[in-house]
Amino acid sequence: MEAVAFRIAPHARLIHLMHGLPEFNIVAAARTLETVRYVPVGIHVCICDPGVGTARKAIICCVARGDYLIGPDNGVLLPAASALGGIAKIYEITNTRLMNNPVSPLFHGRDVFVPAAAHLACGTRVDDFGLELAPDALHPPPYCDALPSQDQISAQVIQVNRFGSIHLNVTHEAWDSLDLPLGSIVRVTIGNERTISVPFHRTFGDVAPGAAVLLKDDYGRVEIAVNQGSFARNFSIAIGDRVTIDTTSTR
Amino acid sequence: MEAVAFRIAPHARLIHLMHGLPEFNIVAAARTLETVRYVPVGIHVCICDPGVGTARKAIICCVARGDYLIGPDNGVLLPAASALGGIAKIYEITNTRLMNNPVSPLFHGRDVFVPAAAHLACGTRVDDFGLELAPDALHPPPYCDALPSQDQISAQVIQVNRFGSIHLNVTHEAWDSLDLPLGSIVRVTIGNERTISVPFHRTFGDVAPGAAVLLKDDYGRVEIAVNQGSFARNFSIAIGDRVTIDTTSTR
Amino acid sequence: MEAVAFRIAPHARLIHLMHGLPEFNIVAAARTLETVRYVPVGIHVCICDPGVGTARKAIICCVARGDYLIGPDNGVLLPAASALGGIAKIYEITNTRLMNNPVSPLFHGRDVFVPAAAHLACGTRVDDFGLELAPDALHPPPYCDALPSQDQISAQVIQVNRFGSIHLNVTHEAWDSLDLPLGSIVRVTIGNERTISVPFHRTFGDVAPGAAVLLKDDYGRVEIAVNQGSFARNFSIAIGDRVTIDTTSTR
Repeated sequence: MEAVAFRIAPHARLIHLMHGLPEFNIVAAARTLETVRYVPVGIHVCICDPGVGTARKAIICCVARGDYLIGPDNGVLLPAASALGGIAKIYEITNTRLMNNPVSPLFHGRDVFVPAAAHLACGTRVDDFGLELAPDALHPPPYCDALPSQDQISAQVIQVNRFGSIHLNVTHEAWDSLDLPLGSIVRVTIGNERTISVPFHRTFGDVAPGAAVLLKDDYGRVEIAVNQGSFARNFSIAIGDRVTIDTTSTR
Repeated sequence: MEAVAFRIAPHARLIHLMHGLPEFNIVAAARTLETVRYVPVGIHVCICDPGVGTARKAIICCVARGDYLIGPDNGVLLPAASALGGIAKIYEITNTRLMNNPVSPLFHGRDVFVPAAAHLACGTRVDDFGLELAPDALHPPPYCDALPSQDQISAQVIQVNRFGSIHLNVTHEAWDSLDLPLGSIVRVTIGNERTISVPFHRTFGDVAPGAAVLLKDDYGRVEIAVNQGSFARNFSIAIGDRVTIDTTSTR
Repeated sequence: MEAVAFRIAPHARLIHLMHGLPEFNIVAAARTLETVRYVPVGIHVCICDPGVGTARKAIICCVARGDYLIGPDNGVLLPAASALGGIAKIYEITNTRLMNNPVSPLFHGRDVFVPAAAHLACGTRVDDFGLELAPDALHPPPYCDALPSQDQISAQVIQVNRFGSIHLNVTHEAWDSLDLPLGSIVRVTIGNERTISVPFHRTFGDVAPGAAVLLKDDYGRVEIAVNQGSFARNFSIAIGDRVTIDTTSTR
């Protein structure tokens, strides 16, 4: 993909946000792409595309911050679009003159998405790629934000990082609305089975090595980790699992 | 290696085609390097070098398309050389003035191959590196192309990608010569043991999640995959295994 | 991190020395960073930071060769500083104007270390980041060099590479002081348990596939490998384990 981009837009600067996303996992890919909020305004491509070559559309999302998000219409772009201020306009990519031909039905990353990004970087107008789409024509996002309700948050695991920390669909803003002081102990229920007590702190080292801790993560969401260990392995948690946080006992 | 290249050729643009090739596996490395057909004409280095520091030669292959392929003389460069139109000339790298000295007997990637690529990028003539070699002096390639014979293809697994799809030493051209329509069911025998029926389709999503599918892959060869699953894991297949495809029943 | 660097210092050239260091392992990270001796003089950042957000300092080490090493004060920078000629000066990073604000207590790589590197690349003076520190105020290094004593070296495994070779805290110079000819057989004791005979050779291919071999590695230390196999897996060795080398029988 980088070579294809270079051929079209030799002046472009490429940054790899992530290699090796979990296979076929749109939730994890969408969560990872949210990190674009830390990247300068630009053209961002995300390939997590189990429907490649089928009727699913290829799209360009223009967002409020001024970025373009490019990828398949399977929801993977939408949480990042929200993080960048929301969608302004959406275009379908259908103009084959702006693709790498012949287009493989197996790899639109190389043959459709990256060429679109490179052509945009060269000044091609976004409405040259295809027709504008209505936002409600899009496939829905793979997750929405969990909101607190009566001292509880029913959340979903949307990423497990390489250290085994779990990231939840709970924003810093939603967490802050609970107004819990640092050091508060919350009750965390994993699935329907096991409930544990976890303290809310600033950083990993605020608890002993091997102990669990709930944190505001470094990309705008809530994370549960084990200091120098793996929360996901200790509790056999995977992306998509439900996690309920109960803050009653902290009152 | 990138730092060594930068020291010699600070103007050069580097693209990493692949990190973390399977250990000591010349077949998989050679298959991966075939992807240079999607890269602009350039200087390509491949390090899969279990014989590093022994009598095996270090070589530069000049190919018909105009590229240079640089690496060990263990066959790893030859399938890519074929994909780029075949070998025009070959040179041995022996000129120590064009190496990173002292040369470690463990890491010719850093000390021999990448310096050669960087010096070529700076305009050093290819015959400054050493003597020309005859093509028949080279170590043979790790695989050849499998050809259909009487409705059968006896093939070899030459790559297993990170999704668990297996790639065979069967080119699109060889497959097309069978003239099978999309939707045809072929019989696939894995080793000598197990035979399964697999449909030939355009893309993964043409079968249900979990089902196997035979495809023309995105780099010029035939692939067998499981939609949103792992064919290699389901059938315990590894690089180097034999796979026989029987197309009789489709007639 | 690369995006943050680019925003501050768009002219800078970035090289990734390593992705995916073993989790929470300061020994392995420090050993990996020693490879800067093969990199041109520059500004090097290392993030292995289990104490992120706690009282541990963020530091810049100016070394004799002219490089800057930037990271946490947990010892991880010190073996590389020695490899680059030793520490000349050390500064603490406390100037918040030179950070990515707000600073996450979980990711000083992005918010403290990389911004410091990028500002240095733009010409910011090193004493603008904070106060100078005395060398003896630093956290000690995670390992020191093992030295031969009476035909024995009591060493530590400081890295296991992806091929399963183990790297010891024994420098080429320390090894050379034993004055052993190539082909010598040494006795290697792993932990307190198992003793095996291993020949000292130049390269992997000097022994048969599957056989163990002791080598001077490609970055300045001693390595024990299995030709086309994994020494670490064969002998269940991990980073931090003790390995004793006895050279008596070679006399």
